[in-house]
Amino acid sequence: MDSIFSDAQKRLTEVFKYFELPDDVREKLKRPKLSLCVSIPVRMDDGSLKVFTGYRVQFDDTRGPTKGGIRYHPDVTLDEITSLSFWMTIKCAIMNLPFGGAKGGIVVHPKELSRLELERLSRNYIREIADIIGPKRDIPAPDVYTNATIMGWMADEYAQIKRQQLPGVITGKPVHLNGSLGRVAATGRGALHVLQEWVQRKKLEPENMTLAVQGFGNAGYHFARLAHDQGFNVVAVSDSKGAIFSEQGLEPVRVMEHKQQHKDLKTMMYCDGSVCDLQRYKKLSSEEMLQLDVDVLVLAALENQIHKENGAAVKAKLILEIAN
Amino acid sequence: MDSIFSDAQKRLTEVFKYFELPDDVREKLKRPKLSLCVSIPVRMDDGSLKVFTGYRVQFDDTRGPTKGGIRYHPDVTLDEITSLSFWMTIKCAIMNLPFGGAKGGIVVHPKELSRLELERLSRNYIREIADIIGPKRDIPAPDVYTNATIMGWMADEYAQIKRQQLPGVITGKPVHLNGSLGRVAATGRGALHVLQEWVQRKKLEPENMTLAVQGFGNAGYHFARLAHDQGFNVVAVSDSKGAIFSEQGLEPVRVMEHKQQHKDLKTMMYCDGSVCDLQRYKKLSSEEMLQLDVDVLVLAALENQIHKENGAAVKAKLILEIAN
Amino acid sequence: MDSIFSDAQKRLTEVFKYFELPDDVREKLKRPKLSLCVSIPVRMDDGSLKVFTGYRVQFDDTRGPTKGGIRYHPDVTLDEITSLSFWMTIKCAIMNLPFGGAKGGIVVHPKELSRLELERLSRNYIREIADIIGPKRDIPAPDVYTNATIMGWMADEYAQIKRQQLPGVITGKPVHLNGSLGRVAATGRGALHVLQEWVQRKKLEPENMTLAVQGFGNAGYHFARLAHDQGFNVVAVSDSKGAIFSEQGLEPVRVMEHKQQHKDLKTMMYCDGSVCDLQRYKKLSSEEMLQLDVDVLVLAALENQIHKENGAAVKAKLILEIAN
Amino acid sequence: MDSIFSDAQKRLTEVFKYFELPDDVREKLKRPKLSLCVSIPVRMDDGSLKVFTGYRVQFDDTRGPTKGGIRYHPDVTLDEITSLSFWMTIKCAIMNLPFGGAKGGIVVHPKELSRLELERLSRNYIREIADIIGPKRDIPAPDVYTNATIMGWMADEYAQIKRQQLPGVITGKPVHLNGSLGRVAATGRGALHVLQEWVQRKKLEPENMTLAVQGFGNAGYHFARLAHDQGFNVVAVSDSKGAIFSEQGLEPVRVMEHKQQHKDLKTMMYCDGSVCDLQRYKKLSSEEMLQLDVDVLVLAALENQIHKENGAAVKAKLILEIAN
Amino acid sequence: MDSIFSDAQKRLTEVFKYFELPDDVREKLKRPKLSLCVSIPVRMDDGSLKVFTGYRVQFDDTRGPTKGGIRYHPDVTLDEITSLSFWMTIKCAIMNLPFGGAKGGIVVHPKELSRLELERLSRNYIREIADIIGPKRDIPAPDVYTNATIMGWMADEYAQIKRQQLPGVITGKPVHLNGSLGRVAATGRGALHVLQEWVQRKKLEPENMTLAVQGFGNAGYHFARLAHDQGFNVVAVSDSKGAIFSEQGLEPVRVMEHKQQHKDLKTMMYCDGSVCDLQRYKKLSSEEMLQLDVDVLVLAALENQIHKENGAAVKAKLILEIAN
Amino acid sequence: MDSIFSDAQKRLTEVFKYFELPDDVREKLKRPKLSLCVSIPVRMDDGSLKVFTGYRVQFDDTRGPTKGGIRYHPDVTLDEITSLSFWMTIKCAIMNLPFGGAKGGIVVHPKELSRLELERLSRNYIREIADIIGPKRDIPAPDVYTNATIMGWMADEYAQIKRQQLPGVITGKPVHLNGSLGRVAATGRGALHVLQEWVQRKKLEPENMTLAVQGFGNAGYHFARLAHDQGFNVVAVSDSKGAIFSEQGLEPVRVMEHKQQHKDLKTMMYCDGSVCDLQRYKKLSSEEMLQLDVDVLVLAALENQIHKENGAAVKAKLILEIAN
Repeated sequence: MDSIFSDAQKRLTEVFKYFELPDDVREKLKRPKLSLCVSIPVRMDDGSLKVFTGYRVQFDDTRGPTKGGIRYHPDVTLDEITSLSFWMTIKCAIMNLPFGGAKGGIVVHPKELSRLELERLSRNYIREIADIIGPKRDIPAPDVYTNATIMGWMADEYAQIKRQQLPGVITGKPVHLNGSLGRVAATGRGALHVLQEWVQRKKLEPENMTLAVQGFGNAGYHFARLAHDQGFNVVAVSDSKGAIFSEQGLEPVRVMEHKQQHKDLKTMMYCDGSVCDLQRYKKLSSEEMLQLDVDVLVLAALENQIHKENGAAVKAKLILEIAN
Repeated sequence: MDSIFSDAQKRLTEVFKYFELPDDVREKLKRPKLSLCVSIPVRMDDGSLKVFTGYRVQFDDTRGPTKGGIRYHPDVTLDEITSLSFWMTIKCAIMNLPFGGAKGGIVVHPKELSRLELERLSRNYIREIADIIGPKRDIPAPDVYTNATIMGWMADEYAQIKRQQLPGVITGKPVHLNGSLGRVAATGRGALHVLQEWVQRKKLEPENMTLAVQGFGNAGYHFARLAHDQGFNVVAVSDSKGAIFSEQGLEPVRVMEHKQQHKDLKTMMYCDGSVCDLQRYKKLSSEEMLQLDVDVLVLAALENQIHKENGAAVKAKLILEIAN
Repeated sequence: MDSIFSDAQKRLTEVFKYFELPDDVREKLKRPKLSLCVSIPVRMDDGSLKVFTGYRVQFDDTRGPTKGGIRYHPDVTLDEITSLSFWMTIKCAIMNLPFGGAKGGIVVHPKELSRLELERLSRNYIREIADIIGPKRDIPAPDVYTNATIMGWMADEYAQIKRQQLPGVITGKPVHLNGSLGRVAATGRGALHVLQEWVQRKKLEPENMTLAVQGFGNAGYHFARLAHDQGFNVVAVSDSKGAIFSEQGLEPVRVMEHKQQHKDLKTMMYCDGSVCDLQRYKKLSSEEMLQLDVDVLVLAALENQIHKENGAAVKAKLILEIAN
Repeated sequence: MDSIFSDAQKRLTEVFKYFELPDDVREKLKRPKLSLCVSIPVRMDDGSLKVFTGYRVQFDDTRGPTKGGIRYHPDVTLDEITSLSFWMTIKCAIMNLPFGGAKGGIVVHPKELSRLELERLSRNYIREIADIIGPKRDIPAPDVYTNATIMGWMADEYAQIKRQQLPGVITGKPVHLNGSLGRVAATGRGALHVLQEWVQRKKLEPENMTLAVQGFGNAGYHFARLAHDQGFNVVAVSDSKGAIFSEQGLEPVRVMEHKQQHKDLKTMMYCDGSVCDLQRYKKLSSEEMLQLDVDVLVLAALENQIHKENGAAVKAKLILEIAN
Repeated sequence: MDSIFSDAQKRLTEVFKYFELPDDVREKLKRPKLSLCVSIPVRMDDGSLKVFTGYRVQFDDTRGPTKGGIRYHPDVTLDEITSLSFWMTIKCAIMNLPFGGAKGGIVVHPKELSRLELERLSRNYIREIADIIGPKRDIPAPDVYTNATIMGWMADEYAQIKRQQLPGVITGKPVHLNGSLGRVAATGRGALHVLQEWVQRKKLEPENMTLAVQGFGNAGYHFARLAHDQGFNVVAVSDSKGAIFSEQGLEPVRVMEHKQQHKDLKTMMYCDGSVCDLQRYKKLSSEEMLQLDVDVLVLAALENQIHKENGAAVKAKLILEIAN
Repeated sequence: MDSIFSDAQKRLTEVFKYFELPDDVREKLKRPKLSLCVSIPVRMDDGSLKVFTGYRVQFDDTRGPTKGGIRYHPDVTLDEITSLSFWMTIKCAIMNLPFGGAKGGIVVHPKELSRLELERLSRNYIREIADIIGPKRDIPAPDVYTNATIMGWMADEYAQIKRQQLPGVITGKPVHLNGSLGRVAATGRGALHVLQEWVQRKKLEPENMTLAVQGFGNAGYHFARLAHDQGFNVVAVSDSKGAIFSEQGLEPVRVMEHKQQHKDLKTMMYCDGSVCDLQRYKKLSSEEMLQLDVDVLVLAALENQIHKENGAAVKAKLILEIAN
């Protein structure tokens, strides 16, 4: 089948050819250590009860407590979460961090919930998975459509159950509630470090390089902002509603300000208003942006944006994917 | 799709038409409260490591701690386990027991494991699910290809983790290790009670009734034995290798003795040697036995033995299914 | 001071004169073992946050886990709760039950809350006191303006925190959720047993005796109903809005039916609609009812209804107080 | 009423006028999150049982585990402890420490107890409050009439209950039992930092400034000692028995030595012998000392020493209060 | 060596010859599952610290939580406790009780301690062994020189550590503190049942039988009292200070009364004053009593009273040993 | 008696003469706080069950959680383990570490077990002692015949029981599983520091000094290697099978390489093959090596190698014992 996880497994099998690995290890990396699927009952503001489906997958904890974000999205599947938990395992191992890999998610379109419904959903999710997480076992974090406020609710709910404050159970909390400084921009900054490493090895100059950034959420925005600060020429950004392009380069902070001004209250939560109506920029469709003749195409939206159908049309010299 | 659970849900939806039920209840019965899928590493006797897949699904715990067996079978799927956990919920509710419904299983052909490998598999399964079971939360029991010895290992492993003896965590243990008297024959006896109730209402005489029993494992054997004791005429029994038939009736205890004598050591564990070689009985194929012209056809093997293809050929007046 | 608890202590000191008690015991009975006062934040339906004050007092646990109801009332004070926890200690000891005494309460007018607000208040109260209660430590129960539904919420919340079902943490739950049969009428039935004992000793006949019952809540209603069944002549009942009187006697079940019909949704929760508008009965003020010339005046409302000011006017031969 | 806590609340309300604060926060700061009052039975050396009253109040834990001392004093009241727990909350927040505020106390005159009685009292207090404290929940510390030895007993008792060593449950332990270096003088040193900051801003010279220190316990003594080291001119100190004054300035270490020599065994525990009999100094009454014409009057005894009645007579330019 | 336990093992090996037992079982019964030796610091009334040695041995828990008394005696050794834990295992198994065997003890002459020292010793012993006992793991009971009061202290101490009441952790508590009715006389009554069984099989008459009872502690006294009630002729009893004899028979209740009257305060705890000064009875030495020409010699003191040296001189037809 | 522990106590008593120590401390240091002896059932590869005896002794925890290695050796006795736990207490105190002292051991000849048997033994040992160890209570470490792999198994087993990763429960784990860098050579390096301190005080030159090292296990080898690196002249080393000597000095790394090459699979685990067959060195018996005329004789094998019988023959100027 063409499930996301079986695809990840295929890549792993390919890689295994280049390693001498004990059979035990090969056997253990074939499937997640633990997958939990829970029903999350939420009392809606209108008094009705709605039950959401949530997941938490711990792929491997050999190297330490597992670590991985929680995603709120209507398209979340167990297959996807499993696959992402696998990649978290690989990513932590590559960076030699004392953590295993995990991932979680809820099948929900968070923008359709009120703030109080969202709080109840988040708290109840923690209630359902409380037995298998913990500062020394599995430590969630924000991911697509979850943020510091949600992490704060989750940490508080966990504290209520455990009868003591255990902020280490979750990362990405608000800074004033034991959150880490620099957390918000960390994903984007990490990607920039990778780009800079590549630029240095290739002996290139940031000033001479053009970048297109797909996705203007947390990862894409901060990457664009910091890359701009380092002299890179960000010529295009896109969000779920479309893309803008400017040959002279964009100023990410200005773009974000504009986007913020036009958001309504609900989108405030997720800072993803549209950037399409900025007058001085050329509007592009998402597909068009992927085909821009830039030096680096940065993918900071959902996974698998470049595939068999559109791969050939990509003109960028380097594709940098910022995975969650 | 034609998954077992979606089929169960279809029947539920049908039944819902005849009830006035709060929307909350309808919403909650649509999916299991919690499904856990675990990898179970087992050190094999040859020193290699093999990883098995295990499940535990708790469907609903509104009425009390959940209850349901653990199945060892190579065809176990999450869909099947989910479906069985749903039926356990319904069964406990119908009998007004203070229990919710659950089910568990491991994808394994137990006869291919040595006794020590089987013990390690069983103990490690408990290790992996220990956080979500307990005498006041979820209480496993034997099911297809699991038995009292296995339950004893599991109870012991749970005690090791919890640092105290909690025999209430599992039922179906050996009698001398806090097991219940009468547990072994309970499934068969319960089915007989149902048959007797029906016979009484129909004002029939056991002596005039013929029975064919598909499946000669724990449930089928004890049902046959007790039915025979109550005067019913058991004319045919089958196991996974074939069926025997005798117009004058069989003596279940004798059949079992014969079957026991011809078992090898491995099958001793599961008392499922073949009954086909008994000389004085007529041999039938499994399909032929389902079509015998008997009063009652008792189904005590796996689920869904009667279906669209073979249903029309069944001649029995009553089909009694003994579900695990 | 004239606090309720210091009054209770005065009576205790008086009683001590008639006992030979070790000094240790006298010393320990002077004050509660533990008093907990908590702030209970509740998100109201309008989105605002309201903080309620709750109490739980454990007076003495020498004889076993403490036991005592939870009261929802705007006039709840720590002094009152302490005093009631003291009387629970004495009552359990007199009946030789293996329980100590406790009491709890929240300062709230429950009828002013929506059902969902009431649920959140009740659940959050349990969250705040969860560390000091438990099936083997302190076991709450319903009291004034709390009922089986509330107990069910509380038991569920406790189960969520403790990660297992512990219905023994609270009594008075709905019967289908591990509640005890007969619990609803138990307070009234217990009082009737006392009355019958007295009647028997005095060699009186129920049929010749008239009863007036102050308070037509749970305790008063069931007492009246059962007393009527035993032949007593219930001539007057009252609730918070007034009293009715009938020389020929009332039928408590009919009175309750009438009261139920005229309740609005909010009062449904507490079955305390008014009985004043029943046409065939004479209406009395609460004060007038206390002065009726009956054989037995039954006090089933709040404490201290008979005091210095109105005591002289009471004409009943026996005053029977049903304390919560 | 003029309770200490309602006074604190009045000041808070006043301050609120200058802030834009969410209603939720205003609502939550109106009352303590949790107040626990316990009875502490202590077997006295003469074999009798005496029951003491102890408190622990956690005002707010939004910013982290709560923190606050335990006071042994015959005048301890719940009102006072509540008020101090409120100020601890404010103090921790002002210093941006990741702690909430709490406070505890026992109604006892510790000098009337033997060392063994004091140990039993301290250990039993911890037994009674063990459920609500902890290194990640609420962390006591020394306060008026409690010291490192008492903290050591408390930490040990907590370890016995929790079956492991958790020195983080309490601060102010003896240095060799996981206590912090510098803890003893910390309160005084902190106050000195404040004074130095003020002196610097006012461009004053320590050498030209006179100080009078009310209270020669832990806070007052170390403040005086360190201030003297920094060149300030400490001209008067007082303890509960009186004050001494010297225009040329005192040497705090010498004063303490003299005080120590004249203490009896019981006072050894609390280093509060009298300083009144030092021959070369002028003796003053406590009231007189408050009215000395000094630059800085340091209040290091109990709260509220300067009030409406005596405020007008104070001549000091700066009053520095060292709150516990 | 001639250790008590190796002697027990020799007997076991002898018995094994008559059984077909799996090797696993033989292997496991060779040594205790767990032996714990602890130092118990006790603050004496004079302020000094004395450290006592305590033991708890759990021999085998296959059949259920382990069960066995706690002995206070200056001659307690690990060897003795181990041996007794072995016999408890055998005794529980023979009676088919769902318990394994254990035993505990402290090396102490309890009569040399004050009541408060004894309480501190008993509580601290529980503190030291709390991790390995529990209602579902290992359940102590009274034994030589321990009694209901001591069990009450121990149960209370365990409750303090576990933060809930768990009276099931220990048996033999005072009846009003969850103790069992009939517990005090149970050891003696059990022995009488054995004697009666023997008498019946031998077709003897109690009235014609003479009994001598060595040991007039709890076991011996109640045996003698109940045997006397059943018509047996108790002609001699002894305690640690000597024996009395009367051909016409003794009245055990009267003997005990006399003994009680002459006890001093310290012996009150253990009801073991001397019986030697009763005028109407003949005094014997302990050795003489063992050689009386009676039908039954009952041994209710410490173990191993009859040995190689004195065995030949015993004239009784039956020796009945009441082991603790 | 001449037990190892009584010998240790004799030395302590001797040392006490030079200290002013409170009686409490003297009393507490006379015996271990806690000694646990457990039976460890292990399923052998041939299917049989073998029960091993294991110990864990915690001598004193006043200064912090106890710390000490686990020894696998056929000669392990409780006396030896107790004595070593005492020395661990003294050693930690001398170095002013916040740890008390402990020690553990199993009576087993580890080379006679297969790797899987060794894993099962190690895991089961942890199961049996899990209640009394922990990162904040008692922290084992490697010792004679235990190594990083074994510590890894133990840490994993502890994590399984505690349901979270607690690597702090044991030290000496493999570096990639939270082990500490430098751990392997730490014992030898520590001993070298001591030698260097002595050399410096005596104003000697390493180059002019000859060393003989008894024991070529972990401690001895790394000591020899590092001493050689610092210029010392290592002229002889021995292992359990004999000794080699070379006047010009040995190269410890080369000796180890040779030893490694000639090991069989089983000894791989413990790197203790024989060094006797190296051709260019003179072979000595163990006794002969102790009598070599070297400057420093380093004892890195088991305890008590120099005693009354052979002490007089030792010619070394300094004996340096590396205790485990």
